[in-house]
Amino acid sequence: MKNIAVFPGSFDPVTRGHESIIRRALLLFDKIIIAVGDNPEKRAYFPFEKRMHWLDQLFGKEKKIEVRKYSGLTVDFCKAVNANFILRGLRTSADFEFERTIGQVNKVLDNRIETIFLLTVPEYTALSSSVVREIIINGGDPGKFVPDCIDLGGKK
Amino acid sequence: MKNIAVFPGSFDPVTRGHESIIRRALLLFDKIIIAVGDNPEKRAYFPFEKRMHWLDQLFGKEKKIEVRKYSGLTVDFCKAVNANFILRGLRTSADFEFERTIGQVNKVLDNRIETIFLLTVPEYTALSSSVVREIIINGGDPGKFVPDCIDLGGKK
Amino acid sequence: MKNIAVFPGSFDPVTRGHESIIRRALLLFDKIIIAVGDNPEKRAYFPFEKRMHWLDQLFGKEKKIEVRKYSGLTVDFCKAVNANFILRGLRTSADFEFERTIGQVNKVLDNRIETIFLLTVPEYTALSSSVVREIIINGGDPGKFVPDCIDLGGKK
Amino acid sequence: MKNIAVFPGSFDPVTRGHESIIRRALLLFDKIIIAVGDNPEKRAYFPFEKRMHWLDQLFGKEKKIEVRKYSGLTVDFCKAVNANFILRGLRTSADFEFERTIGQVNKVLDNRIETIFLLTVPEYTALSSSVVREIIINGGDPGKFVPDCIDLGGKK
Amino acid sequence: MKNIAVFPGSFDPVTRGHESIIRRALLLFDKIIIAVGDNPEKRAYFPFEKRMHWLDQLFGKEKKIEVRKYSGLTVDFCKAVNANFILRGLRTSADFEFERTIGQVNKVLDNRIETIFLLTVPEYTALSSSVVREIIINGGDPGKFVPDCIDLGGKK
Amino acid sequence: MKNIAVFPGSFDPVTRGHESIIRRALLLFDKIIIAVGDNPEKRAYFPFEKRMHWLDQLFGKEKKIEVRKYSGLTVDFCKAVNANFILRGLRTSADFEFERTIGQVNKVLDNRIETIFLLTVPEYTALSSSVVREIIINGGDPGKFVPDCIDLGGKK
Repeated sequence: MKNIAVFPGSFDPVTRGHESIIRRALLLFDKIIIAVGDNPEKRAYFPFEKRMHWLDQLFGKEKKIEVRKYSGLTVDFCKAVNANFILRGLRTSADFEFERTIGQVNKVLDNRIETIFLLTVPEYTALSSSVVREIIINGGDPGKFVPDCIDLGGKK
Repeated sequence: MKNIAVFPGSFDPVTRGHESIIRRALLLFDKIIIAVGDNPEKRAYFPFEKRMHWLDQLFGKEKKIEVRKYSGLTVDFCKAVNANFILRGLRTSADFEFERTIGQVNKVLDNRIETIFLLTVPEYTALSSSVVREIIINGGDPGKFVPDCIDLGGKK
Repeated sequence: MKNIAVFPGSFDPVTRGHESIIRRALLLFDKIIIAVGDNPEKRAYFPFEKRMHWLDQLFGKEKKIEVRKYSGLTVDFCKAVNANFILRGLRTSADFEFERTIGQVNKVLDNRIETIFLLTVPEYTALSSSVVREIIINGGDPGKFVPDCIDLGGKK
Repeated sequence: MKNIAVFPGSFDPVTRGHESIIRRALLLFDKIIIAVGDNPEKRAYFPFEKRMHWLDQLFGKEKKIEVRKYSGLTVDFCKAVNANFILRGLRTSADFEFERTIGQVNKVLDNRIETIFLLTVPEYTALSSSVVREIIINGGDPGKFVPDCIDLGGKK
Repeated sequence: MKNIAVFPGSFDPVTRGHESIIRRALLLFDKIIIAVGDNPEKRAYFPFEKRMHWLDQLFGKEKKIEVRKYSGLTVDFCKAVNANFILRGLRTSADFEFERTIGQVNKVLDNRIETIFLLTVPEYTALSSSVVREIIINGGDPGKFVPDCIDLGGKK
Repeated sequence: MKNIAVFPGSFDPVTRGHESIIRRALLLFDKIIIAVGDNPEKRAYFPFEKRMHWLDQLFGKEKKIEVRKYSGLTVDFCKAVNANFILRGLRTSADFEFERTIGQVNKVLDNRIETIFLLTVPEYTALSSSVVREIIINGGDPGKFVPDCIDLGGKK
């Protein structure tokens, strides 16, 4: 049996924090599927295609990583792609309280799927996609927070 | 003097967590008034009538429980129904920080009304109405989170 | 059936925070038993007799309050005195995490006993018996933190 | 070199909590610039002019305080007004987690600007502009939470 | 390369919480080494041999699990046994803050070793070895908190 | 009037975290007095003279910094040295809860003394004197956590 993990998110946009979690978890799984939420009700700042494109650029050469679109419940997506793990990063205790809720609910919905957590590295503790968006919206340069290969366009 | 408690919420929808808190608190009060918020500015997912109906179904035979509509400040509603206690459940420390703020503000607004807290039982720690709604919106089955007598319709 | 609550602690010494919780909870119970821990392994700063004496002074005229010595598990003491509730105050989210653990363990040990929480009033949030002891040990005056009728002796 | 601090916020409306932090920090700085956010995307409850007016009324006679409009990144505003410090109040650990994120991001964006925190006094721990707005929206009187000189109009 | 995880602790005594974390993590690693701290400065309640014996009883038939004595830094033990992962369970946000500190320090001491976290199942959130010891010390029965095969002797 | 801050601690030993807070706060005060606790009841790991010596080495050339021995209540020491501020660093929300208690108690004991907080830089979030001691006790090298000029002797 292969260990397949889903790393779900909206990646709006992908950050160095995401990148760090995924690369450090690679050793642990046979495959990591980056599941990019495409949810009509939760409008993203960057278009879906752009968010997918950046992830492809970043991880395209990594054979154990796959980038996929998803909608609906994460546990349903896991079943559909035969994943038995969900991968998440933890930055703060606020994060933890939120992730524990999600993790416990997922366990009730499907007891076979386990959520695995890694710690964000300290220098990315403050970093999130919403921080990057706030900086852009307020006319700042979020360059230190996104992977080098990502071109946020006129917005970077 | 009778001890009357108000258990305020939007119950959108009522969960097993709500039910557990109310049933366990029954011994403590002469009457518990479940106050169902009907707030035009905060749009609920389920219509007000449905939310009331489910609570009536669940607690209709319990003589010490009354289900009432309310709007405005909780302390004003308490005064109107002669309640001297507000009843709340605590799940997480995020909950606690939120409830402490509300409880302290209520105490400034009306010093005679005391907020009483019970702990959520561990298996319902992750459970909230918003979790139930998220599951429904994403096409899942929230059946394990709502009381058996509740029929969420095509949505369950 | 009467509602009897146990308020357990070491009261080393009793503080204005303790007093506030007990007085505000009086309306809720037919009797509150203040259970003063006498634990040979956990050495108290003030002798047991003194801690009992201060509580007697403070609440002696209150017919619904009883001051009792206890050791062993709190749930066993509750059974021995026919109490169906444990009363506790909550100050901070650190408090909450600690109390949730105790409350859930007690519920596993005896499912019939419910823990009831009240919020500490804001001006006593920082107040605890250990704060009072630290002030005394360092030569300060803890007078603002203990009830007026308490005479900490040369130490106050 | 002078020590200039920016105290940023939306002050929607100014509260006794804000007032307490600013007055207690006065000794520490040569000048405190109250920076009132005017952000078209984040609609305020009270109009910008009113929020400015209340702050002018409250601090108009204080020579070390200046009230200014701002938009964009806080660190950019700091640079524009030669401020080397950002001043913030801390109420709860939820506050702390939020402020730490902002503070660390600001430090990445401009390493020369330091964020300085003061504790909210206990009786204002539960107090925030959003609490004041909630009370107003629900028909209550927030008078105890705003400075005496502030006239919330028919809304107070 | 094989994925070997160290699960360090004092297991004083092993609880159902420990057991749950280890069994659920088995799928993720080629080997899990349960590292039982034997630290002369931190006196354990149960003798080292007993703590080892209970773990052997519990996991003796599981080929992927090894029970080992350790002292010194966890990262040094990891190097000695060729482990590239440390496995830990998370119950509460207090846990998280503590574990994040340890995890980040370990990463500074040896950047190649990654800490992996699983969530404790909700019904064991309140459970820890120190809770079990407290129950025993106070004359209670901790049977619901320890694995069935564990015989705490006259103490259970 | 001069702004004098006391930075109290046991500095057992001084860490890069301490150093960072003190250097970043220098601009804010006319003088910072590093108050090294010498408390017979709380036995330190390193002797008092050594802890003082390291601080002298580290800050000896800095005219605005003074290193002093203290015992008793921090507010009493502040009065004795004419300090009107206490300086503290904040790393985690557990830190915050602890510091808020101390800060509020100090404010009750002497209302004129204000506690000022700075954020620890992210890479030192996990760092504390007790972490350094744990590493030493377990035979590790804490060199990355203490200032370069500090010679922990055979212990480093």
